[in-house]
Amino acid sequence: MKYGARNQIKGRVKSVKKGDIMSLVKFEVAAPVEMASVLTTESVDELKLKIGDEVQLIIKAIHVLPIKK
Amino acid sequence: MKYGARNQIKGRVKSVKKGDIMSLVKFEVAAPVEMASVLTTESVDELKLKIGDEVQLIIKAIHVLPIKK
Amino acid sequence: MKYGARNQIKGRVKSVKKGDIMSLVKFEVAAPVEMASVLTTESVDELKLKIGDEVQLIIKAIHVLPIKK
Amino acid sequence: MKYGARNQIKGRVKSVKKGDIMSLVKFEVAAPVEMASVLTTESVDELKLKIGDEVQLIIKAIHVLPIKK
Amino acid sequence: MKYGARNQIKGRVKSVKKGDIMSLVKFEVAAPVEMASVLTTESVDELKLKIGDEVQLIIKAIHVLPIKK
Amino acid sequence: MKYGARNQIKGRVKSVKKGDIMSLVKFEVAAPVEMASVLTTESVDELKLKIGDEVQLIIKAIHVLPIKK
Repeated sequence: MKYGARNQIKGRVKSVKKGDIMSLVKFEVAAPVEMASVLTTESVDELKLKIGDEVQLIIKAIHVLPIKK
Repeated sequence: MKYGARNQIKGRVKSVKKGDIMSLVKFEVAAPVEMASVLTTESVDELKLKIGDEVQLIIKAIHVLPIKK
Repeated sequence: MKYGARNQIKGRVKSVKKGDIMSLVKFEVAAPVEMASVLTTESVDELKLKIGDEVQLIIKAIHVLPIKK
Repeated sequence: MKYGARNQIKGRVKSVKKGDIMSLVKFEVAAPVEMASVLTTESVDELKLKIGDEVQLIIKAIHVLPIKK
Repeated sequence: MKYGARNQIKGRVKSVKKGDIMSLVKFEVAAPVEMASVLTTESVDELKLKIGDEVQLIIKAIHVLPIKK
Repeated sequence: MKYGARNQIKGRVKSVKKGDIMSLVKFEVAAPVEMASVLTTESVDELKLKIGDEVQLIIKAIHVLPIKK
């Protein structure tokens, strides 16, 4: 299986909280990972992003898709 | 600063590839991290997600928002 | 009305399940449809996507926007 | 493989248009499909969505994730 | 036309910058608007969001869908 | 703090409606604001977007990220 997405991270389920329609699941990610972001070139220029910069990567939980064998 | 998102991950810029409108930036994430996913309860049931399960977390790069001090 | 999105699919409501804040609605899509994906060129290369390839298209339900006359 | 997403549609690549950072890929979907949307209950009420209603489903191409074996 | 989305904002095109695959369009929004966010209840609690709080609303440009008559 | 997103809008919380997993928060946005959209160049051409055009900007509430000091 090959996925058309830059971020593919191995995790282990830590908790499952079920709601009426939506549920919240948390995962432990053990290994160091590489992550990728696509943003406008305007934003890259405004943030002056360059190699070595420390950043915080924010991802709404709704955008994380779990896949299980 | 407090962010209304479950995933807040520290990273360091590894590469920046600028395009005409969009750019692709890669980050190194060192520490063990916790990640969260919100999905339908139907999907949780279908995947039978339970504590300890190994999963792959897929995130399109477009959904990763870098923040820099 | 013209929409700034590549995917515009006709459907018919099959079920509505209401929750406290979010609801899950299902639709029947009858006709053959065309769908489009935007992904990184890196992902296209990694998947070696070419005409005729069979793929599975995954879309989180949260990204589907219904419009009604 | 089980995916934590409600929409899993079989398609066949029709065209690939590569750009510097992002690419646009189009697919043919032959079979009738079921699609699902998650939206606020407020929106469901405002649209008065009920079984049998005809709607248009709008999805930005960026939210479509292709997977290939 | 009724849209299954909480945010429906009137704007006027200020600039269009076309790229190979993606384009960046900017809009002027004149009137005061109401905006809505859906986030996890956990995040609401962590931010201690209450009436009157001043916040910044961050939206990646990729999530803004223009519609034109 | 610099955010890798084109839309950064000041708002004030008007209402908070908490659900089991997800919550819906509404904001008042006072000042005139600029907004940006990234869409395919194909969509820009189809909509014939040009300076001065009046449009409606649709954003699902799930894509709005509140940040609080």
